Amino acid sequence: MKEQKATNVTWHDHKVTKENRESLLNQKGSVLWFTGLSGSGKSTIANEVAYKLHLHQKFAYVLDGDNVRHGLNKDLGFSPEDRNENIRRIGEVAHLFADAGVITLTAFISPYQKLRDFCRNLLPEERFFEIHCQAKLDTCEERDPKGLYKKARAGEIKQFTGIDAPYEEPKNPELILDTDKYNVEECAQQVIDALKEKDII
Amino acid sequence: MKEQKATNVTWHDHKVTKENRESLLNQKGSVLWFTGLSGSGKSTIANEVAYKLHLHQKFAYVLDGDNVRHGLNKDLGFSPEDRNENIRRIGEVAHLFADAGVITLTAFISPYQKLRDFCRNLLPEERFFEIHCQAKLDTCEERDPKGLYKKARAGEIKQFTGIDAPYEEPKNPELILDTDKYNVEECAQQVIDALKEKDII
Repeated sequence: MKEQKATNVTWHDHKVTKENRESLLNQKGSVLWFTGLSGSGKSTIANEVAYKLHLHQKFAYVLDGDNVRHGLNKDLGFSPEDRNENIRRIGEVAHLFADAGVITLTAFISPYQKLRDFCRNLLPEERFFEIHCQAKLDTCEERDPKGLYKKARAGEIKQFTGIDAPYEEPKNPELILDTDKYNVEECAQQVIDALKEKDII
Repeated sequence: MKEQKATNVTWHDHKVTKENRESLLNQKGSVLWFTGLSGSGKSTIANEVAYKLHLHQKFAYVLDGDNVRHGLNKDLGFSPEDRNENIRRIGEVAHLFADAGVITLTAFISPYQKLRDFCRNLLPEERFFEIHCQAKLDTCEERDPKGLYKKARAGEIKQFTGIDAPYEEPKNPELILDTDKYNVEECAQQVIDALKEKDII
């Protein structure tokens, strides 16, 4: 993705290890990568999962457009290059959170498999869950929670995923949530069940 | 620092609040920003503080050149512009960690007051601790843990802080650690005492 520019930088071990932190939190650091069209339910379901985890006394944090686009990535727009850099940085930050021991939920359209694979490969095996929030484009467009489809149809937003920009469906996601069929609570429970099965919580 | 480029981005409240997470962790999310010359002890003391916090069952994470320069900021070199962007991103990531509820320790030379102030201003009052690791240049150069002063004196590294690039001493740091006078353990304890005094732990 990016060349290592900085030299004179070496890894050294930290005194408190990832395993120490995971033992303190009684969970495994991991990334739950929600991907799907705008309006497919990513952010809503991610927040519901975070809520359920909190009720289980597990420590989770949601990264989404709200907290990332206003801060770390506020220098990035919506050009193809900026979109890629947006996802790259989110993947790297999610990696740091997971390394800290946090169950990290990310909610971004993230339409390209290559970028999602890059983010996956930052993590150890079985610590990255690609979660496809699947809904028909019609459904998403009807929901249109932020009024973005309307703007895209009116030509006010260009290169909008699903309208005039592609969405690459996940090839081998850990989980597919059919948000046409299941409600938020049911989808969130499916995620929790998957985390239990994989011994994350 | 940077203009907000992305539009169509709005804040909404998350279902689990920062206060919920802090209550779960029994601590307050905060940033301990270690600044000082190379060899002044930033990373060593930060790791010792993290260790002491862990013994207190507090949840802390260290951001330093090791985990940031190889990932999130690997596209950045050592030009003045890249150095500033390096610190800006670290400040934003530290803000996310603190918002999650984590006691976040950063160990970077971060020579400019303006940049440190930028990072401070991302956090609520009393949640940012500017910690000056203070040691004489001679001491740092003698320690030279990474052999960087030697290279800088030989002209192999340009714009090295303390040699041919400036270090702006913190104007109003929350804490000054005199690492000429006190050892690592003593310095770390001074930080822990400050966190207790400010009710972070």
